[in-house]
Amino acid sequence: METTTVKAFAAEAADKALKQVEIKRRVATETDIEIEILYCGVCHSDLHTARNDWGGTVYPAVPGHEIVGKVTKVGDKVTKLKVGDFAAVGCMVDSCRTCSSCLDDLEQYCENGFSGTYNGQDKHLGGKTFGGYSEKVVVDEHFVLKVPANLDLAATAPLLCAGITTWSPLRHWNVGKGSKVAVIGLGGLGHMAIKLAKGLGADVTLFSRSTSKEQDALDLGADKVIISTDEEQMKSVKSRFDVIIDTVPYIHDVNPYIATLNTNGTLVLVGYLGGLDPILNTVPMIMGRKSVAGSLIGGIAETQEMLDFCGEHNIVSEIEIIKMQEINEAYERMLKSDVKYRFVIDMASLKN
Amino acid sequence: METTTVKAFAAEAADKALKQVEIKRRVATETDIEIEILYCGVCHSDLHTARNDWGGTVYPAVPGHEIVGKVTKVGDKVTKLKVGDFAAVGCMVDSCRTCSSCLDDLEQYCENGFSGTYNGQDKHLGGKTFGGYSEKVVVDEHFVLKVPANLDLAATAPLLCAGITTWSPLRHWNVGKGSKVAVIGLGGLGHMAIKLAKGLGADVTLFSRSTSKEQDALDLGADKVIISTDEEQMKSVKSRFDVIIDTVPYIHDVNPYIATLNTNGTLVLVGYLGGLDPILNTVPMIMGRKSVAGSLIGGIAETQEMLDFCGEHNIVSEIEIIKMQEINEAYERMLKSDVKYRFVIDMASLKN
Ligand SMILES: [Zn+2]
Ligand SMILES: [Zn+2]
Ligand SMILES: [Zn+2]
Ligand SMILES: [Zn+2]
Repeated sequence: METTTVKAFAAEAADKALKQVEIKRRVATETDIEIEILYCGVCHSDLHTARNDWGGTVYPAVPGHEIVGKVTKVGDKVTKLKVGDFAAVGCMVDSCRTCSSCLDDLEQYCENGFSGTYNGQDKHLGGKTFGGYSEKVVVDEHFVLKVPANLDLAATAPLLCAGITTWSPLRHWNVGKGSKVAVIGLGGLGHMAIKLAKGLGADVTLFSRSTSKEQDALDLGADKVIISTDEEQMKSVKSRFDVIIDTVPYIHDVNPYIATLNTNGTLVLVGYLGGLDPILNTVPMIMGRKSVAGSLIGGIAETQEMLDFCGEHNIVSEIEIIKMQEINEAYERMLKSDVKYRFVIDMASLKN
Repeated sequence: METTTVKAFAAEAADKALKQVEIKRRVATETDIEIEILYCGVCHSDLHTARNDWGGTVYPAVPGHEIVGKVTKVGDKVTKLKVGDFAAVGCMVDSCRTCSSCLDDLEQYCENGFSGTYNGQDKHLGGKTFGGYSEKVVVDEHFVLKVPANLDLAATAPLLCAGITTWSPLRHWNVGKGSKVAVIGLGGLGHMAIKLAKGLGADVTLFSRSTSKEQDALDLGADKVIISTDEEQMKSVKSRFDVIIDTVPYIHDVNPYIATLNTNGTLVLVGYLGGLDPILNTVPMIMGRKSVAGSLIGGIAETQEMLDFCGEHNIVSEIEIIKMQEINEAYERMLKSDVKYRFVIDMASLKN
């Protein structure tokens, strides 16, 4: 298969800083779109993959799955976009397209496994896929999104992972006007959950462990902040919420939050992959028909729906723009939660 | 308040056998129905309450919340039933009737707490309510159900707890024609879950730890039995089920069953009140938008719906009829799972 060479930033081992490398991209096939990457958001998954925190990383690893750019080439059969259009790519670049999940527009739950935008299966060139920390990316049009013209491009990038990851459960669990929604954690995911739930017309509460985030949450649109370590405050929201979006990325006790769910309420885990500890008490779940669920990113059609909604409601992420060369320092700051709320790489810096 | 005296069987302490006593029943008020109890099913909750296994039992305790009988008196304002009709009472005899759960026909989730049929709050006489191990019961008509004429009366009794407890989640999670349902555990609840899910048109699998229950499950209508201790069999149903009704009443590991849920699938706990141990792994939940939920009995309207459905489909419980005087022996046999699948007391025995 014909390829071209492009500049990228890659980790070459779990304990090595990312540095500039060259990688191959396939030349666009008839259903592919080639995108010049303008901005790429920096997700916690990037860092975990670069450092092999979850195992399974193949090096060199080029992270980045919050991609926004401009179309530079399209295959003969492409109808979705044309050269010069703005385009976006999220966490997936392929899936089987034939299983029942794929046919239901739930490519993220593809029964044969979707191809992640990085460290996924590259069905064209073999080996692993390379993500958005690079000059260009070539993706089948099905997995390319259109970007609403009115949105700030850089601040749109995080919608492709942090945005859709919180949008999908809000929509699946029917959040709308008058819904009572709580968000646990105010980071990349949490701040998007607040904005999107507000956009949908919900009454939104942030659960936070520290009072320091209170004003920020209100500024983002939250109606209320509950300090989760304060028992009185927790009691004040007993049986209140229809849906809780739990963005906490580390092991934590969900039982106190279950108590704040209303009858039929659902707590949706979107941030933490692992065992729930302490153990989950079934009593309040049975006594109020409450659910604990998980949710993973969102499907392609749903991602477009979210982008269009953000266009209509003028919703974007709060970001800090960095240069590609600053990525290693940005990872260290992310580990200290020292970012409001998402780093976005200005990919022009890679051309220098 | 005017009362009458009726014979009943009661536990007078946690460590005492049940024996015959006399209790007071109120005289029917204008919205009450007085029922001569003909049959009363024997639920595990009866035993746990009699022995104070959950704490909170007030003695004397008269268990029994699977009540079928004949109307002997109705208040002036009663419209639902008339003297001579067959009637049934389940797990609830009262609730606030004004909270949003009650107004949504979800009396079981009454925000002010429903009054259990036994060891619940008796709002008329004060103290605790007395259940169905007695000659008569007096209940507000809202909490009295009609019994379809074609059903065997004794075998109908267990529908009032075991039936509705499994019916409610099957309906809430939209089980219908073509749904793939699994049931964990083949006891009073499990055997009703199989019958009701089959009645709704689902493909039904029983998970059992022992091969000895295989033929029984197939006879009850199950399409398949999976031995949960057999890894190969468990693998054969990976990602298969839309809904799992988990009737297991003791602590158990739900993680292996989560693996058998399809995308969007839900495991509903109806039998076990306590902590889930080992801890729940969020990974497969997130990777397949799976849920773990709880569900408690069902509302009154839903209970009538279930009884009517059972009438149409000629569904009743599998029972073994006992005399009231055999209740203590029956409890011992229940602890050894030595019953297919529900004891029902012929209350005529109490008249002797
Ligand atoms: Zn991400
Ligand atoms: Zn697929
Ligand atoms: Zn019961
Ligand atoms: Zn109520």
